Amino acid sequence: MTRYISFARPDGTPSFGRLDGETVHDLGHPGAPSWLKDVLAGDLGALAAIGTYPRRAVRLLPVVPNPGKILCIGLNYATHVAETGREQKEHPAVFTRWADTLVADGEPLVRPPETTRFDYEGELAVVIGKGGRRIGRDQAMEHVAGYAVFQDGSVRDWQRHNIQFTPGKNFPATGGFGPALVTSDEVADLASQRVQTRLNGELVQDQPISDLIWDIPFLIAYCSTFTPLAPGDVIATGTPGGVGDKRTPPLYMKGGDRVEVSIGVIGTLTNPVVDEA
Amino acid sequence: MTRYISFARPDGTPSFGRLDGETVHDLGHPGAPSWLKDVLAGDLGALAAIGTYPRRAVRLLPVVPNPGKILCIGLNYATHVAETGREQKEHPAVFTRWADTLVADGEPLVRPPETTRFDYEGELAVVIGKGGRRIGRDQAMEHVAGYAVFQDGSVRDWQRHNIQFTPGKNFPATGGFGPALVTSDEVADLASQRVQTRLNGELVQDQPISDLIWDIPFLIAYCSTFTPLAPGDVIATGTPGGVGDKRTPPLYMKGGDRVEVSIGVIGTLTNPVVDEA
Repeated sequence: MTRYISFARPDGTPSFGRLDGETVHDLGHPGAPSWLKDVLAGDLGALAAIGTYPRRAVRLLPVVPNPGKILCIGLNYATHVAETGREQKEHPAVFTRWADTLVADGEPLVRPPETTRFDYEGELAVVIGKGGRRIGRDQAMEHVAGYAVFQDGSVRDWQRHNIQFTPGKNFPATGGFGPALVTSDEVADLASQRVQTRLNGELVQDQPISDLIWDIPFLIAYCSTFTPLAPGDVIATGTPGGVGDKRTPPLYMKGGDRVEVSIGVIGTLTNPVVDEA
Repeated sequence: MTRYISFARPDGTPSFGRLDGETVHDLGHPGAPSWLKDVLAGDLGALAAIGTYPRRAVRLLPVVPNPGKILCIGLNYATHVAETGREQKEHPAVFTRWADTLVADGEPLVRPPETTRFDYEGELAVVIGKGGRRIGRDQAMEHVAGYAVFQDGSVRDWQRHNIQFTPGKNFPATGGFGPALVTSDEVADLASQRVQTRLNGELVQDQPISDLIWDIPFLIAYCSTFTPLAPGDVIATGTPGGVGDKRTPPLYMKGGDRVEVSIGVIGTLTNPVVDEA
């Protein structure tokens, strides 16, 4: 399984590369694109490494550190629709995050002092490789570069201040995107991979991708109808039932916690939680 | 009244400048920032012109062509809250647009073939000059570079596909942002300026800025609590009552129409409407 990562080199400059066990092969050439999104439309496998680092010598960045668009799908698992008490509609809910809300694997999620209702949402992220507008469902999978794991962390009270989710989904460093991009050709059986979220080791969400109400081709077709997609854009496909806010009693994240989202062969995104000073 | 514009020079390169009647003073220096947002934090008045163009020789761009964040406030006039039948909450609704949804003054708004419910929303846009996080209401106005006129054009059926507005607010070229930035120090009486929208000459929205439920200091304080603001970021402050979708019979925009939003001394944003081929 080939895994592509975005990272900061020991000197702090951003690059991207191929992770091979504990070795990072640096694929960002001087004078050429140093951002993964700038090469996603091309042949990643053909890129030559300009050097290697031990994994621990680099700092991971979010899989795509600077996506042009991050589209988040809401209400895409029946179990989650049911627990929210919302109506099942004919189209998915779509909201947005800005890139500064996302941290890399291993980096802390930050609970702001404005809330005690900081919640987890484990999700599959789809990374666009080939841009387009009004992409047909039959062609949609050709536009996918690959997959990664997404933590759509939510500040629940601010999410419900009014009818739009933006405030609760955009506090800085409340979401995660990692650890690596797995190219779609390497995932033979995406449907059976399970989205599993663990808070301090306890399994709190666990459903297969096959439970998505709107599948990936539909989401790409739908989203690309209203907005052009470009390489590096991200579609977070929604979270399964089991969120903390709908439990009795509620289960929220706080400083000192550790949250993990695993999606089978795609990998595990692990983040400690810190309370903002 | 000094007006700053973003524009494409006759050779197509982007710049920004000061509009003085029919003359554009080009303030974008070679080797220096050519984007208005990159100089908003500084002293605009101190910039020297490197040349001039007749107004008609340049093509206007949206006031800030590439804002990092565009925050749109919903439900911020009681007349609009009432016509939507929604509940007045204690906080504003906040949704987002991407920059590719906005065109400049004079450029066409594009009605996509996916809808017949293309609606206008005239609004005051606040352009951030000094960034910050958790900006206090008392300091908020120091963070304002100035004002412009905003057309928050909406594809109503897609806006209501589900509970989040994103799809209906993000079709390309469905919104407008222009014609120019008027710096806040030049607007002595913002509160009494009226947001007036005209569709084919008919006055369809008309309310003073003083009718905002949440005023500009509140909006800056609120938004900057959940997301850091940077120079060039835009807060569209919400639309008055009178939108076409809530009229009997409804009044929508279509190819061949012309929509204008005027806000007193701040200016007039005029856009023809075309049907996408």
